[in-house]
Amino acid sequence: MTEARRRRRGADRAAARKAVALDQQLPAVERKIPTYELFSDESLELALKNAEILLQEVGLDLVNCHRAANAFKTAGQTVTVIEESTGSGAKDQTIHNVRFDKGWCREMMKTLPGAFTQYARNKDRSVPIGGNRTVFAPVYGPPFVMDMEGGRRYGTMADFEDIVKLTYMSPALHHSGGTVCEPVDVPVNKRHLDMIYAHLKYSDKPIMGSVTAPERAQDTVDMLKIVFGADFVHNNACSTSLINLNSPLALDDTMMGALEVYSENHQAVITSPFLISGAMAPVSAMGVMTQALAELFSSMAYTQLIRPGAPAIFGTFAASMSMQSGAPTFGTPEPNHIIYGMAQLARKIGLPFRSGGSLCASKSPDAQAAYETANSLNATVMAGANFVLHAAGWLEGGLVSSKEKLVMDADQLAMLQKFGQGPDLTEDGQAMDAFREVGPRGHYLGAAHTQRHMKTAFYDSKLLDYRPYETWAEDGSPDTYTLANRKMRQMLNDYEAPAIDPAIDEALKDFVDKKKASMPDASF
Amino acid sequence: MTEARRRRRGADRAAARKAVALDQQLPAVERKIPTYELFSDESLELALKNAEILLQEVGLDLVNCHRAANAFKTAGQTVTVIEESTGSGAKDQTIHNVRFDKGWCREMMKTLPGAFTQYARNKDRSVPIGGNRTVFAPVYGPPFVMDMEGGRRYGTMADFEDIVKLTYMSPALHHSGGTVCEPVDVPVNKRHLDMIYAHLKYSDKPIMGSVTAPERAQDTVDMLKIVFGADFVHNNACSTSLINLNSPLALDDTMMGALEVYSENHQAVITSPFLISGAMAPVSAMGVMTQALAELFSSMAYTQLIRPGAPAIFGTFAASMSMQSGAPTFGTPEPNHIIYGMAQLARKIGLPFRSGGSLCASKSPDAQAAYETANSLNATVMAGANFVLHAAGWLEGGLVSSKEKLVMDADQLAMLQKFGQGPDLTEDGQAMDAFREVGPRGHYLGAAHTQRHMKTAFYDSKLLDYRPYETWAEDGSPDTYTLANRKMRQMLNDYEAPAIDPAIDEALKDFVDKKKASMPDASF
Repeated sequence: MTEARRRRRGADRAAARKAVALDQQLPAVERKIPTYELFSDESLELALKNAEILLQEVGLDLVNCHRAANAFKTAGQTVTVIEESTGSGAKDQTIHNVRFDKGWCREMMKTLPGAFTQYARNKDRSVPIGGNRTVFAPVYGPPFVMDMEGGRRYGTMADFEDIVKLTYMSPALHHSGGTVCEPVDVPVNKRHLDMIYAHLKYSDKPIMGSVTAPERAQDTVDMLKIVFGADFVHNNACSTSLINLNSPLALDDTMMGALEVYSENHQAVITSPFLISGAMAPVSAMGVMTQALAELFSSMAYTQLIRPGAPAIFGTFAASMSMQSGAPTFGTPEPNHIIYGMAQLARKIGLPFRSGGSLCASKSPDAQAAYETANSLNATVMAGANFVLHAAGWLEGGLVSSKEKLVMDADQLAMLQKFGQGPDLTEDGQAMDAFREVGPRGHYLGAAHTQRHMKTAFYDSKLLDYRPYETWAEDGSPDTYTLANRKMRQMLNDYEAPAIDPAIDEALKDFVDKKKASMPDASF
Repeated sequence: MTEARRRRRGADRAAARKAVALDQQLPAVERKIPTYELFSDESLELALKNAEILLQEVGLDLVNCHRAANAFKTAGQTVTVIEESTGSGAKDQTIHNVRFDKGWCREMMKTLPGAFTQYARNKDRSVPIGGNRTVFAPVYGPPFVMDMEGGRRYGTMADFEDIVKLTYMSPALHHSGGTVCEPVDVPVNKRHLDMIYAHLKYSDKPIMGSVTAPERAQDTVDMLKIVFGADFVHNNACSTSLINLNSPLALDDTMMGALEVYSENHQAVITSPFLISGAMAPVSAMGVMTQALAELFSSMAYTQLIRPGAPAIFGTFAASMSMQSGAPTFGTPEPNHIIYGMAQLARKIGLPFRSGGSLCASKSPDAQAAYETANSLNATVMAGANFVLHAAGWLEGGLVSSKEKLVMDADQLAMLQKFGQGPDLTEDGQAMDAFREVGPRGHYLGAAHTQRHMKTAFYDSKLLDYRPYETWAEDGSPDTYTLANRKMRQMLNDYEAPAIDPAIDEALKDFVDKKKASMPDASF
């Protein structure tokens, strides 16, 4: 074989490998295993009852949410101004407290869809949200990024694009996510434009929108209209955005402003309390669940005041706390109890549920990170979460977006996806023919049943090391971090952008450029 | 404060720390959470029905098990000689095949206790086996040991003693285990004596016996009689021993010989198929479960032919296989499905169940090891396994006993033990007083409810790193392996042997010395 032919053959093989990688994209998990029911129905009813008491007797504070205060008042709820400050030197602040009539929020929530589709620009990659389906999205929000070569540092737009590409290349990540890291090299008031563009350009999986200001949410919607068409966007979820509530029991104008834009435009929101027990919530699972219910009921009811039928996801983010350092901890028993309980409550109410992820406190992609992550991901999947933000790449309590850990976690997600398929109960799965063929003291490798199923029988990790000790030692005894670094670099090297209509791409770029030119840089 | 006073105060503190470490020993897990029921009752019934067909139509091969063949024949089962070789040059071999009448094994199994106590020489450390209790024991059987200083190497008696000591010092390991590593510096025919002595001397937790030859099992029983008294041993489980079955569908004279000694002496056995799908069993969960049932029914029935009422544990060890290397894989979906299914079957039949553990394929205590281990341990605990061998310290598919990983896994076990306690559903746990005290926008740290529960609210790892990034980086950015190495060395440094009656200790040493002197060294 000539050198040229050998090279061509090598190139053909590489192309085949890439094609296979894209073909291997997994659909959203379709769970065929039962969910784990940790709480009795009686205790769930108790949490629901206590949440109603909380809404009636303690209520919700609205910080500068004038539209929401008016809407709740108009709808007959008890709204009181409890703080009002105006004048020089301080930001104006108005705080309303809302007390809710028993059952009113639940009544309002009846127009929420129990399940919906989030569309991707590649319609084959649209994802079902709810029911027995689970969608995995990457880490969201870290100011820092980390990889083996560069260490831990503030994120940049180049890092952001790397993470979007790695997510695109990972078969078990069904969703491109949102702020996969904060690109701090772009001014705060403009970075959402680059982020949304990067998701739409470098991936064709579904995306999340900006929530840091109402006008940035509107920019997201406007860019979606360029891609999907205005009419389609108006009636279909082309984005899902994370609305973190201001626990305990408060909502602020930033998040509510974003929620209002998205709900008005029929774009999906994840209303989600962010609860570190002992800080924003009590130190007991029932306490956390009760508070989360009250916060969810009031904010989800508000989405329906904005636009009945607008899709929203019942979200919960829970962490415990280290007694030594006060740092939030993850993959621990207490938040896992809460994931199970909140999932049960979401099912009872009939709404899609968001929680869990590749959560860990560890500062490097070591054994601690993996123990914590696996504990968290097992609970996430067995609880039956429908939308899993932070499903890959989360490190150091969410401060760090790790490129290697994204690759490591994505392998675990593919594995859990296979776990969720459950065992084969068919006659073929019962393997009675294999026993008759092999008999006592035989070996199953050559059996017809084995040969028939060998390729799909077991989860086949593309990352983890199953080589004999000696082979592995000769290769320098690489740990998982090192293996993931190699794979991550290979993926970025192999990456090819999905096709995009050049006219749409131009229109998006034009939108971004004009918006950027229309305002000075700002750091808030 | 003078230097002497300071030193004394330091010593007092160290003593206090040690005392606390021993006080912290956890009782066997008392599960207050539901088990996870993966399989429908219908599919379990199907596996049971198929197992009976297997026992009737394919049967079990006995390799040189003359006593068992006779016993099954006497009890009316169909026993056929299928191979008989005698003469020079080859080892004599007789193979019987036994076909079982439908339901006969299950009928025999009715005298098996549904739960029992395994006694420790310190009666406070005796453990309940069965029901909603879970007992964690360390890794069993590795020829290699590994620690950070010495790397991977063949185990020695000094390593064995280290691992017994580390197990003794680990609050969530309830059991001292058995062959925590193979001490290859002691001749094969004598090492069981040193191993049993080490467990009895350096720990006071329950122990496992030798199974490598019937006479070594007898030595175990004789040593237990020295410690517990002959009468007590005759009627109480003072040991639990691992009888690995020769899958597929066979039993051999070594394991059966040990089983006979233990069952005759009312010592507990774990009858346990060792099943790597695709090698010793089919590549489907239902296939593995069906075969395991047939193997368990026949061997457990045999324990009751030996001595009705002798305790036995329904065991299963299952692994999947790497398609790349043929190596067994762990913490993967397929063996986890099997753990859940076999646990359900054990409950259905009413027997204590052994499975799972800190299983992994990784060759170092890295993220791969931790992902695989956590996946496996979560399934183990949520399945409701009663006896968990290999619960800590397992590495490289069981080839390696890792001292650091034992420390790492033991921390995870303590965490899972807290997970198993479930949430607090009491009025106090509902925290309604906390909401009323803190109100919207408040902080829970100072709340009376928080202060009341702060010390026990969250699992408090003594190993994992929750320090701020900067503090951790100043300390050299230690990964979990490094932290575990530090803790492991500290534990061995702090170790103090539990008290033992000097007369008993002398008698044990005397027994070991005389036995060793009675035979030449042998390597089999």
